Amino acid sequence: MREEATAFVPGHVTGFFSAHPDDDPTKAGSRGAGLTLTDGVDVTIEPATETTVVLDGTEIDVDPVATVLETLDATARVEANSELPLGAGFGVSGAMALGTALAANRVFDRKLSMNELVTIAHGAEVQAGTGLGDVVAQAHGGVPIRLEPGGPHHNELDAIPARARVEYVSFGERSTADVLSGDTEALTAAGKEALARVVEEPTLLSFLYASRLFARDAGLLTARVSEAITDVSSADGQASMAMLGETVFALGTGLSDAGYEPSVCATHPAGAVLK
Amino acid sequence: MREEATAFVPGHVTGFFSAHPDDDPTKAGSRGAGLTLTDGVDVTIEPATETTVVLDGTEIDVDPVATVLETLDATARVEANSELPLGAGFGVSGAMALGTALAANRVFDRKLSMNELVTIAHGAEVQAGTGLGDVVAQAHGGVPIRLEPGGPHHNELDAIPARARVEYVSFGERSTADVLSGDTEALTAAGKEALARVVEEPTLLSFLYASRLFARDAGLLTARVSEAITDVSSADGQASMAMLGETVFALGTGLSDAGYEPSVCATHPAGAVLK
Repeated sequence: MREEATAFVPGHVTGFFSAHPDDDPTKAGSRGAGLTLTDGVDVTIEPATETTVVLDGTEIDVDPVATVLETLDATARVEANSELPLGAGFGVSGAMALGTALAANRVFDRKLSMNELVTIAHGAEVQAGTGLGDVVAQAHGGVPIRLEPGGPHHNELDAIPARARVEYVSFGERSTADVLSGDTEALTAAGKEALARVVEEPTLLSFLYASRLFARDAGLLTARVSEAITDVSSADGQASMAMLGETVFALGTGLSDAGYEPSVCATHPAGAVLK
Repeated sequence: MREEATAFVPGHVTGFFSAHPDDDPTKAGSRGAGLTLTDGVDVTIEPATETTVVLDGTEIDVDPVATVLETLDATARVEANSELPLGAGFGVSGAMALGTALAANRVFDRKLSMNELVTIAHGAEVQAGTGLGDVVAQAHGGVPIRLEPGGPHHNELDAIPARARVEYVSFGERSTADVLSGDTEALTAAGKEALARVVEEPTLLSFLYASRLFARDAGLLTARVSEAITDVSSADGQASMAMLGETVFALGTGLSDAGYEPSVCATHPAGAVLK
């Protein structure tokens, strides 16, 4: 058994999605597309007599992390340091689950494959209701398109072959679990339309365009988010809303050009990695 | 149309494989496993009135590159700069094909998805007989396990969740096309056994062990390669042969410890990327 191991998991903003529930959490998930980000989460695992989870210095409960550790039969101190806010649409809970799986596999010498670890983290996230597609996207990196839902044994991924500078501002939290447990019919219809558009033309511009239409048609825009997206458009930029958080992301200098003071990162070329 | 674009494609050493021919080059391929490398190939594409391919300053013919450009209806100057020797088992031809696909898609604004570009490069490599599994591995990054053969629409990949320092020495070239056009029955049997071993225990140590048995059982070892592997083992290291080249690769400081003066790189966490 090693003393500790650390994994880095990129953040992930989903631009649009459709929800695909299933009784089997490894088959449940979402279709959609998003950007993985160089801003992400470092997760360090250390064996301990009791499991504790610390995010940016504060002890918290993160259901998917607890589930991953139970599945790996591991008791550990989990220390996560995130460049991204929790609950704001950056996939931080998915990152913590996936980072825990990767690092715990190494520390406790569980000898599981990448697909097995991603399956465990994805299933834990689905069961907790905290996300449907972040984990598989974060394992992939780049600008993943989720063509078919579920974990690695069931899903189908493609990607937009591009990279970009990404800016974002976050106005607050939004509960993924609340939205996903509500009526998702309009959302699913809008998500399917957006996916068809991006499959037809897999470019960043078409992704941003599809994402904006989705946010509007799915009825998820808040006033502040809507205003920021309009401001970026007025400055000839491309922005949309991170699903699901009160967060706006833009390509290039979109938010800066519109007078905002955004955080700045880029698309992350790789998926989650051990450090 | 852009003036130029550059893609980086990691090198790839295959430790073991089994060949799976098919009349459809997008279904043909190999099962197996290997290491993608931080040493790789930069491919720059520039529109031109006539297609030329230059590798490290020398004009050469690379069939898969020509096929990729034809498929994308592109006439271009292709300039590749490689940290790795051609024909020595590092997947340089695959890297050139995939890098050409990625960069030409961008320069000529072809709006294809990552899977479509990988399919084109993989098919071109298979048709040329220069490789069967490098392209899909190089698109994936990390330490990919090719569970099912073929391009992205047909294959199935997993990965060993690990990274490592990698050392290598190359004694010379070996024609992949010659080996693949010969009798591959013993090779395929040994490849299946090696894959079963790594699926059972997806770790770097088991990958190296399976690779050594494969090289021996498939009858591909040359005297110099065999000697170097034995030298590394005697120094308590792990080494095997790159398929297909007269090249030995080792984990960590395996070759240095055995008194060789190897090139040093590491596993590459990401697949091929636009720069």
